[in-house]
Amino acid sequence: MIVTIVGTGLIGGSMALDLRAKHFATKILGVEKNKHHAKEAMMFGTVDEIETLSKSIPISDLIIIAIPVAETIKILPFILDKIKNGAVVTDVGSTKNDICNSVKNHPNRKQFVPSHPIAGTENSGPKAAMKNLFEGKMTILCNKKNCHPDAIALVKNMYEILGMKILFMDSKDHDIHVAYVSHISHISSFMLATTVLDMEKNTSTIFNLAGSGFASTVRLGKSSPEMWAPIFLQNSKNISQALGTYIKELTEFKNFVDEKDYKKMFKAMKKANGIRKVLEGKKL
Amino acid sequence: MIVTIVGTGLIGGSMALDLRAKHFATKILGVEKNKHHAKEAMMFGTVDEIETLSKSIPISDLIIIAIPVAETIKILPFILDKIKNGAVVTDVGSTKNDICNSVKNHPNRKQFVPSHPIAGTENSGPKAAMKNLFEGKMTILCNKKNCHPDAIALVKNMYEILGMKILFMDSKDHDIHVAYVSHISHISSFMLATTVLDMEKNTSTIFNLAGSGFASTVRLGKSSPEMWAPIFLQNSKNISQALGTYIKELTEFKNFVDEKDYKKMFKAMKKANGIRKVLEGKKL
Repeated sequence: MIVTIVGTGLIGGSMALDLRAKHFATKILGVEKNKHHAKEAMMFGTVDEIETLSKSIPISDLIIIAIPVAETIKILPFILDKIKNGAVVTDVGSTKNDICNSVKNHPNRKQFVPSHPIAGTENSGPKAAMKNLFEGKMTILCNKKNCHPDAIALVKNMYEILGMKILFMDSKDHDIHVAYVSHISHISSFMLATTVLDMEKNTSTIFNLAGSGFASTVRLGKSSPEMWAPIFLQNSKNISQALGTYIKELTEFKNFVDEKDYKKMFKAMKKANGIRKVLEGKKL
Repeated sequence: MIVTIVGTGLIGGSMALDLRAKHFATKILGVEKNKHHAKEAMMFGTVDEIETLSKSIPISDLIIIAIPVAETIKILPFILDKIKNGAVVTDVGSTKNDICNSVKNHPNRKQFVPSHPIAGTENSGPKAAMKNLFEGKMTILCNKKNCHPDAIALVKNMYEILGMKILFMDSKDHDIHVAYVSHISHISSFMLATTVLDMEKNTSTIFNLAGSGFASTVRLGKSSPEMWAPIFLQNSKNISQALGTYIKELTEFKNFVDEKDYKKMFKAMKKANGIRKVLEGKKL
């Protein structure tokens, strides 16, 4: 199967590495507008060839779009225009509803399977790509009823070959849930980094005092603005609501601190501790 | 050297394991008021004997207090009353100024070295103790001028044997810096967990959608309220200020999201990205 990966960064690159290693793809074409990244993707053997979008689309059986979500919306109709009969397109964006809406009336809509593999690191670009990034993780496929069953089957099969579990979800629901479970944790981390950088002008103090806890909490603050700003724009309504709730919780906790209210602080933290069970897949 | 560890949990227990393995302690006595923990500490071989405070203090060369910081303040004067001549006391609390003030007029003040080893996990109790927890990390020793040089030398040597780097700092400065670099990252994480638990009533959705990023950001939200509530109380003034700044930054970012202001979001995230360099020990 000939696979085109549009965007050879962390996600696209990691998919390319595994899809070749697992013999899913016989040939991997890379579309990459960043010349430095294109060079890296060839150097690291991420893709077999760097090709233009116009040349790669008509010869590909599967096209994976792994670029910032604003670019995906721009490029997706063009790709659906050019695909060969029976070919399948998927994207890996962290928002799904705007992307689905952008092609809802496209004649080849059924050949597109909107997906969101929940995997990644705080790094980006071809050099961040790694094998087995997806192993054991979850991917969300959205709006199944708008996709051709064969297209769903192919994309599902591909993710299963990457070692992923599959969950079907409505694109609107997806965007609400990820606002809470993914997007605001990024903002929380970005702004924690900013707060500390603002207050600790002597950065060696941060370096000296940062334990593994701080490092863990600000890790996402190293993430790429090129990738995340478009996500925050597309999911702004849900994120605003989630962020509002988060700020409310923080403000309430600050009040407990100001009032030196041990009991209320304790109770709030005890409640938060429930996340341990939830992340272990247990009921609260 | 006979070492008494008051509190056989994550920090005390991990110190005990390494101090024995590295032949620093010939005998380790554990003082543990939680009967279940006392049993575990013996079962796991964390300590050689469980002993009462009254019996262990007069026969110990070094006493390490590794209990919640409110308990430390209560117990510290009593320990300094009972220590033998030349013996040394240290604590491992995440706040330093109130603890220092609580014994500033004690006749044996010079035998106490306030310390803060910056190491830990989100787990607690003797079963959370592990070898090499401190290797390569930083410990802060406070208010050196109030300590006997021999006491400083002993505590410094002990931490170096655990593989730690040493930094001296004023206790007031320590508490300001840790409010930013440690304490608010815990609150950020506790409240992120709460927000998500509040909004996602079907907890399987959290389990399904949580990627490594979310897991990393809420990890500290699993931490022990028994340990952290007293820290937040003792450092309430600094934490309130840090948390106020953090809430301000988040509110500002929320405004950018509401206004769909790509440029401002991008700029704010790019600034936050500076934390990568800082945590690598580089200049911004």
